[in-house]
Amino acid sequence: MNFNLDDRILHGGDYNPEQWQDYPNILQDDIDQMKLAHVNTVTLGVFAWGALEPAEGVYDFIWMDQVFERIQRMGGNVILATPSAVPPVWMSEEYPEINRTDDHGQQHTHSFRQMFCFSSPIYRAKVREINQQLANRYGQHPALAMWHVSNEYSGACYCPLCEEKWQRWLEHRYHALAGVNEAWVTTFWGSQYSAWSQIKVPSQLNEHKNHGMALDWQRFCTDQLIDFCDAEQQPLRAANPTIPVTTNFMAEGNDGNYIPLQGIDYGRFAQHLDVVSWDSYPQWDFDQSVSTIPAVQAAFIHDLYYGLKQKPFIVMESSPSRVNSPIAKAKRPGIHLLSTMQQVAHGADGTLYFQWRQSRGNSEKFHGAVIDHTNDTSNRVFQEVAHYGQMLEKLSRVKGSKHHAQVAILLSWESQWAMYREAAFGRNRKEYFQMLQKHYQYFWEHDIPVTVVTPDTDLSDFALVITPMLYLMTDALADRLKQYVAAGGKLVGSYMMGIVDEHDQLIQDQWRPQLSDVFGIELGEFDSLYLGESNEITFTGQKFATHDFDQLVKPVDAKVLGKYNRDFYAGSPAVTSNDFGQGQAFYVGARLSSDFITAFYDDVLGGKNQWQPDFLQQGNPVVSVQSRESEQERFVFAMNFSATVQRIQFSRPLTEIETGESSQLVELVPYGVKVYSEPIT
Amino acid sequence: MNFNLDDRILHGGDYNPEQWQDYPNILQDDIDQMKLAHVNTVTLGVFAWGALEPAEGVYDFIWMDQVFERIQRMGGNVILATPSAVPPVWMSEEYPEINRTDDHGQQHTHSFRQMFCFSSPIYRAKVREINQQLANRYGQHPALAMWHVSNEYSGACYCPLCEEKWQRWLEHRYHALAGVNEAWVTTFWGSQYSAWSQIKVPSQLNEHKNHGMALDWQRFCTDQLIDFCDAEQQPLRAANPTIPVTTNFMAEGNDGNYIPLQGIDYGRFAQHLDVVSWDSYPQWDFDQSVSTIPAVQAAFIHDLYYGLKQKPFIVMESSPSRVNSPIAKAKRPGIHLLSTMQQVAHGADGTLYFQWRQSRGNSEKFHGAVIDHTNDTSNRVFQEVAHYGQMLEKLSRVKGSKHHAQVAILLSWESQWAMYREAAFGRNRKEYFQMLQKHYQYFWEHDIPVTVVTPDTDLSDFALVITPMLYLMTDALADRLKQYVAAGGKLVGSYMMGIVDEHDQLIQDQWRPQLSDVFGIELGEFDSLYLGESNEITFTGQKFATHDFDQLVKPVDAKVLGKYNRDFYAGSPAVTSNDFGQGQAFYVGARLSSDFITAFYDDVLGGKNQWQPDFLQQGNPVVSVQSRESEQERFVFAMNFSATVQRIQFSRPLTEIETGESSQLVELVPYGVKVYSEPIT
Amino acid sequence: MNFNLDDRILHGGDYNPEQWQDYPNILQDDIDQMKLAHVNTVTLGVFAWGALEPAEGVYDFIWMDQVFERIQRMGGNVILATPSAVPPVWMSEEYPEINRTDDHGQQHTHSFRQMFCFSSPIYRAKVREINQQLANRYGQHPALAMWHVSNEYSGACYCPLCEEKWQRWLEHRYHALAGVNEAWVTTFWGSQYSAWSQIKVPSQLNEHKNHGMALDWQRFCTDQLIDFCDAEQQPLRAANPTIPVTTNFMAEGNDGNYIPLQGIDYGRFAQHLDVVSWDSYPQWDFDQSVSTIPAVQAAFIHDLYYGLKQKPFIVMESSPSRVNSPIAKAKRPGIHLLSTMQQVAHGADGTLYFQWRQSRGNSEKFHGAVIDHTNDTSNRVFQEVAHYGQMLEKLSRVKGSKHHAQVAILLSWESQWAMYREAAFGRNRKEYFQMLQKHYQYFWEHDIPVTVVTPDTDLSDFALVITPMLYLMTDALADRLKQYVAAGGKLVGSYMMGIVDEHDQLIQDQWRPQLSDVFGIELGEFDSLYLGESNEITFTGQKFATHDFDQLVKPVDAKVLGKYNRDFYAGSPAVTSNDFGQGQAFYVGARLSSDFITAFYDDVLGGKNQWQPDFLQQGNPVVSVQSRESEQERFVFAMNFSATVQRIQFSRPLTEIETGESSQLVELVPYGVKVYSEPIT
Ligand SMILES: [Zn+2]
Ligand SMILES: [Zn+2]
Ligand SMILES: [Zn+2]
Repeated sequence: MNFNLDDRILHGGDYNPEQWQDYPNILQDDIDQMKLAHVNTVTLGVFAWGALEPAEGVYDFIWMDQVFERIQRMGGNVILATPSAVPPVWMSEEYPEINRTDDHGQQHTHSFRQMFCFSSPIYRAKVREINQQLANRYGQHPALAMWHVSNEYSGACYCPLCEEKWQRWLEHRYHALAGVNEAWVTTFWGSQYSAWSQIKVPSQLNEHKNHGMALDWQRFCTDQLIDFCDAEQQPLRAANPTIPVTTNFMAEGNDGNYIPLQGIDYGRFAQHLDVVSWDSYPQWDFDQSVSTIPAVQAAFIHDLYYGLKQKPFIVMESSPSRVNSPIAKAKRPGIHLLSTMQQVAHGADGTLYFQWRQSRGNSEKFHGAVIDHTNDTSNRVFQEVAHYGQMLEKLSRVKGSKHHAQVAILLSWESQWAMYREAAFGRNRKEYFQMLQKHYQYFWEHDIPVTVVTPDTDLSDFALVITPMLYLMTDALADRLKQYVAAGGKLVGSYMMGIVDEHDQLIQDQWRPQLSDVFGIELGEFDSLYLGESNEITFTGQKFATHDFDQLVKPVDAKVLGKYNRDFYAGSPAVTSNDFGQGQAFYVGARLSSDFITAFYDDVLGGKNQWQPDFLQQGNPVVSVQSRESEQERFVFAMNFSATVQRIQFSRPLTEIETGESSQLVELVPYGVKVYSEPIT
Repeated sequence: MNFNLDDRILHGGDYNPEQWQDYPNILQDDIDQMKLAHVNTVTLGVFAWGALEPAEGVYDFIWMDQVFERIQRMGGNVILATPSAVPPVWMSEEYPEINRTDDHGQQHTHSFRQMFCFSSPIYRAKVREINQQLANRYGQHPALAMWHVSNEYSGACYCPLCEEKWQRWLEHRYHALAGVNEAWVTTFWGSQYSAWSQIKVPSQLNEHKNHGMALDWQRFCTDQLIDFCDAEQQPLRAANPTIPVTTNFMAEGNDGNYIPLQGIDYGRFAQHLDVVSWDSYPQWDFDQSVSTIPAVQAAFIHDLYYGLKQKPFIVMESSPSRVNSPIAKAKRPGIHLLSTMQQVAHGADGTLYFQWRQSRGNSEKFHGAVIDHTNDTSNRVFQEVAHYGQMLEKLSRVKGSKHHAQVAILLSWESQWAMYREAAFGRNRKEYFQMLQKHYQYFWEHDIPVTVVTPDTDLSDFALVITPMLYLMTDALADRLKQYVAAGGKLVGSYMMGIVDEHDQLIQDQWRPQLSDVFGIELGEFDSLYLGESNEITFTGQKFATHDFDQLVKPVDAKVLGKYNRDFYAGSPAVTSNDFGQGQAFYVGARLSSDFITAFYDDVLGGKNQWQPDFLQQGNPVVSVQSRESEQERFVFAMNFSATVQRIQFSRPLTEIETGESSQLVELVPYGVKVYSEPIT
Repeated sequence: MNFNLDDRILHGGDYNPEQWQDYPNILQDDIDQMKLAHVNTVTLGVFAWGALEPAEGVYDFIWMDQVFERIQRMGGNVILATPSAVPPVWMSEEYPEINRTDDHGQQHTHSFRQMFCFSSPIYRAKVREINQQLANRYGQHPALAMWHVSNEYSGACYCPLCEEKWQRWLEHRYHALAGVNEAWVTTFWGSQYSAWSQIKVPSQLNEHKNHGMALDWQRFCTDQLIDFCDAEQQPLRAANPTIPVTTNFMAEGNDGNYIPLQGIDYGRFAQHLDVVSWDSYPQWDFDQSVSTIPAVQAAFIHDLYYGLKQKPFIVMESSPSRVNSPIAKAKRPGIHLLSTMQQVAHGADGTLYFQWRQSRGNSEKFHGAVIDHTNDTSNRVFQEVAHYGQMLEKLSRVKGSKHHAQVAILLSWESQWAMYREAAFGRNRKEYFQMLQKHYQYFWEHDIPVTVVTPDTDLSDFALVITPMLYLMTDALADRLKQYVAAGGKLVGSYMMGIVDEHDQLIQDQWRPQLSDVFGIELGEFDSLYLGESNEITFTGQKFATHDFDQLVKPVDAKVLGKYNRDFYAGSPAVTSNDFGQGQAFYVGARLSSDFITAFYDDVLGGKNQWQPDFLQQGNPVVSVQSRESEQERFVFAMNFSATVQRIQFSRPLTEIETGESSQLVELVPYGVKVYSEPIT
């Protein structure tokens, strides 16, 4: 059923019956087991092109027709993927131009995923044709809930076709070569371009160290994905404009990190989709004693992907148990329910797994699945999935409800790309997204809702906007931040903020004048610290160690809140606040650790009560409380991310949805989660 | 003299007179010094193709004739190598197809060793021709003892010729493409093949992440080596069928590891040779306080290469002093005799060095040699070599005697290849071969002889078979293990055992039914532990920490010997035993350390006495006692791998071969070794 | 003004007005700010080819004319660079042969610096043409002070043109192929060459592991640079033979290392230049508590680059503040003056910065500059630069004065190349240049002047020559060292000395006979130690730990000064001295740490007084005292490389140049520097 009309929260996963066509019993078991698992949705067709078009122009939709029919009979939804992520092998063989060329200039043959060229006219025609076929055949099917275009779009191609597109993209952006030369400061190493054809793709064989070029290349790569995705959607939308379209976004991380994908500007990409969805694989149990870390990381990404369209999203992939990563750990009992319910709490209207049934072999055979190789439904993983499915059925009225926030953290993919390239400006570990998560953690621990926004987002509805390390800044954004504060907003900025423009060129002035006005400061010297080295600031009478970066601040109008204590800049201001217009702006010059961030926001917020939800009387740093609101009702999720029993207290009795009981004091078992509601009056 | 007829243990090394043709005095010194060193054998012709055929079709055998003559006059043996490891430069230049193409698709020109294409018809013809020439000229030479085909076969070629062979190999294995698609689960990422020509070599430019494909590629690579080696042997065997044929196998390792070569299935390769030989470079003195570690590692590999044909082998290369490795340490006094005598103790019928004379320059000039750049025989290295040579002369009747064992450890190269590819299923450090060595160590320390066997080995003569981490298992092997236990054998299995089939596909069931029967268990959940994390089991009243992997066990008929103590699976069985038929099967679910292994095998063996040699009354964990038996006589080697004086005691007086004295109490100086014998009655 | 005639010490930097042609105010500011900064010299034209020849044969010199005119009006010097480091983009596009081919055989297109082919006839013609144009136009210009040929020559090209040159270079060196085969010991792996065309460039696709070949390739690469540089100079010298020519040399390092560039034999290169200049970027403040480390490292390189021509050099690039490195730390107050004055103290006749004005964007925008993006002269960096400029004006009579030394440390690039290749002979970290710096440190701490020399340097004027780890040695050098000692010199040698010849072939003897004579020893066994392992020697009653390498010594005539205390070579000599002719030779067999080096040289020098400058009564290990001498005057620099106040005492009152005051006791503030003078009588 069209996702927009279905009143169920989606529960299900990637379903690959094409892997099991020779196993008819398995195909029958699937449907029975889905019912047992309270699954209502399957994602179909990812990587299925080879099965749908086994030879050029020869289609086989019979097996897919059967699945649609079975799912429909079950009362379920189909999210239908276009199969562009992997072309059939015969196509790669027949039309080599569709294969990607790598950054050493070597064209590949057929191989795994996202290895096609985004520019190949042949590939685009072939994709259009198969999408048209799918749209014609299933576009009106009553089980069709959503289109899932391709799979995990990513990467770049360095072929001549893409080079040509890159040159046209630059021509469109800069009109004249003088614009490119100016934007990229090509005079620096004497590399002025005098013809468009001289500008190669930045492969390892060509110029690739120019910073402006590298930044534009990343923009171009995002535009390539969007352009390809737009083209994919045309036949789908033409066939049935009411079916929403999504593609699955990603996150990344290892060694205890889990951050949004760095390579693609999802802020722009999301504008081309109806619904945002993403593949969520946090590293639960990285360290059993501190399970709030993956919780904070996942919550941050949820709040970002919610923020991209300021509306509910879908978790398109997740694992019901282990992940195909270097240490594939089994999820502890309770973690499954806790981690999936966290998705809903932050605005997800669906939890889908990759994958429904564990594949027999090949690269990801040990990745978790609802049904494993034993085809057994009695095991713990299956039981926890089914339990969650049952819970979701009781929560169906949560679907579509909003996740409001007064606080925005601003994340800029372009800042990330620009600073990432810098050899200088401090050590290699810039950790931009990680620093945003560090700020975010304060609010998570205090149950203050946050939306993570991108530079184009309208900020006027937020009471507090936090912009750490917002390195790259357009004049227009500086204007908007100034207006935002003038109109009464609170703004938090930091070292690295606003020091380059959209071409990654240094501001030819002390600082962006708008920023100097708003923060009431000029910038002084900048110091980078060696690993293990630290300075110290005094702030509200306490001392805090700085590390990595120390920006010295020269107050003009600002009040000094903190000063450096050591080295030749002892006594120099480090943290300031400034009243500007109706608002207030805080600047933090140094990288400081969590204890400072706590003290700082305690000060910025001026009393947490007005920021925390009014229904919460007593929170708990390891219990996350999040809420969603429909027009009639508020849903409150209390989630214990610790291995011990925890308590929180509401300001007034709320009704627990599962039991129907009303209570004000909440006790949560280890990794326990409870969902409450109250009417909105 | 034909190796089969010679009653001497071989002693000598790689001899390269082609490097010294302009130094006639050196060539004369060689023979004199060989006599001084008690050397009776030289390996000739390795890397000599350029000297033998300086231009196409122009041969120069004079210098080799002379060496043959000199060696014969000395009463020595020649092991004659075919020169295929390195073609002459003119050949690489004239026929580029003979050069290898790397896994980035780039064809190389002439360079170092094993850089030829295994498929090139031209190279095969050229190799056949030179081998024919050698066979004609020297096949009947009285000094010829053995053929040494090529040198350290290894690697892979990704050229079109090899791609063609790969496709034919697959066609032969699977008959139809459907078989490939099914075996490799190509539906997983939508990569079904519809023509043989679509299956490329798994280079970096082509599909190379498919697990089934990668496994078959490794099989193919071994088959390429065997096929090439078989072709090399034809003219040799035709010329004189009585001369045995070998090629030198390898081992590998660093950072304190020393394990069998991982890339080639020597189990299959050995079937194509008359005698197994190998190049042995253990890291002696890695840590002076624990020199038993390299001793155990080397002993394990000796027992494997003995086990491949269940008969004596040759150490084809070893270093009389330093090795050309990152830390090229001088061997301590005594280590040379100890380490070479260990070879003989484990079944070697010869110790050869690489090389006789240190090369003047080039890549390995600091690698140890019997004669170094000073051309001096008074130094310690030469003296220790000569002393060993003298000892060997007294031990000549050891030649051909057997190294019996009741205990087998099963090593599977295919399991290694399959598990190596897994991103998931625990951390990257699977350390399969190292774990086998850990089990092996128990027996080594208790002087219980072991043979390391491969999956095709007949197990019926062993009383105990140990199969840790035997990940990949065919149905046939499962049957054989079941029969083995049913017939009275003891079997030890562990986590990871038997969970995939020969295509690296998950068993579509709880477990191989034969294994469930034999062990009397089903498998439960599987947990991977982070580095530094551990669970704990209680076994025989003692507590042992687990790490890396915890397999939960569900006993059906089995007796529980150990349980997990922590986490959500506290109380779940971890170690079991089961009586099955006339035999008994033990299962160890978790990775545990040496202290557990000791406690475990104390339990499994049920009294060590019946397993230890009857001539040994009191062993010593740092003294290794090994024995060989001819029909008339038993040879007992007592080797002290510690830096202090050690003692052991025999059950009855044995005769020390060197002194002829009889004794029951053995005292060994630091790194000392003594060899005893007794008649077999 | 011609540098030879100008009586000012140069102060200034790389000036890139071509980056600012659209910013006329900036161009005007530049001149005003230069005056404020006491800048008298700019380096012009580096990377300017694109601006000078925007299209083929179309020249634009107007902007450069204007700069020349402005600088002349300012009374300043122009160091004019030839622009060959980066060709214009159109040229790379039009003539692909000018672009470099990498060691994977892939030809690049236009990209950053030093990416041209050294052999391309087209590129050589184009370079000649633009150099001719510059010579014609500016060769007689009164502001022209020096030619700066290209920029940071480096790297290698693997194209067919370079392969052809490589073959011709070998033919010239060896005349016949037999010579190559003998020199490279190609028989070792059977790779005898039978035609010049068979010898490929040692790329990853070709033979590249042969040690002799690799060594010759490094020699060839240096010769390629020299040959190209010679060709560049022709039109320049023809236009005005009086203008001196330089090119900027480099150093390298990270993780606390800072050593001379390893890849180029600057000893030979310097013979082709009039003045040596180099780009100096020591890692100041790597660790605040031990700032003498970068001081010693920088001093060593200064003394080497002085030593190349035994005359004053120029620092062609340096940073007035941060460096574009992974941790771009701000220089502490005082460090700028200290570090630049150190340059002059060691023989620099000029300090130039890269760059005068911070670039707006691109790869190095955060690299320090005199004028930063704020265009502000009030900041600390500018003020410190101006202060130094002012100081230099008072020191103008230092220009041209000499930096004498009785002690020479011998550095051999060929030894570095040869030992670098060795897998064996100790751990990978050979740290040859670092070991030289360790010896150097003793002299630096005791204010004993040192010159670092190369193997071709005439040693007869030195009283002490130190040659640690002089691995590769020609017979001729051995002769010269013998003569040097015979004539009364003191010589210090160590492990690894003289064990291979110029082809990296082992000396076919116990040792070079000359060395055996001089040192009165033969060499015994050699041991490599594992990381963390150590032996011990006793020397002058004290005990010192050895690490990495232990060479055993067999005294013939020598006196034993130190013996090993442990392991099987306990009691074996390790350190010896020998009287030979009128001189004395010391041999140190083991790698020992700084405390040994101190004890050792205390002994070698036999009283430091005669070696320390006579004007110094009391030194201080963290205060460096260096002097220069003109015919009339001695200049003494006292530099405090510590963060605390320090004192030294002169033997007689000297006159402080800045104040004119005379004093014998010197007190230096943290990082303080004072310059004194006295007449030479
Ligand atoms: Zn493309
Ligand atoms: Zn091949
Ligand atoms: Zn070239």
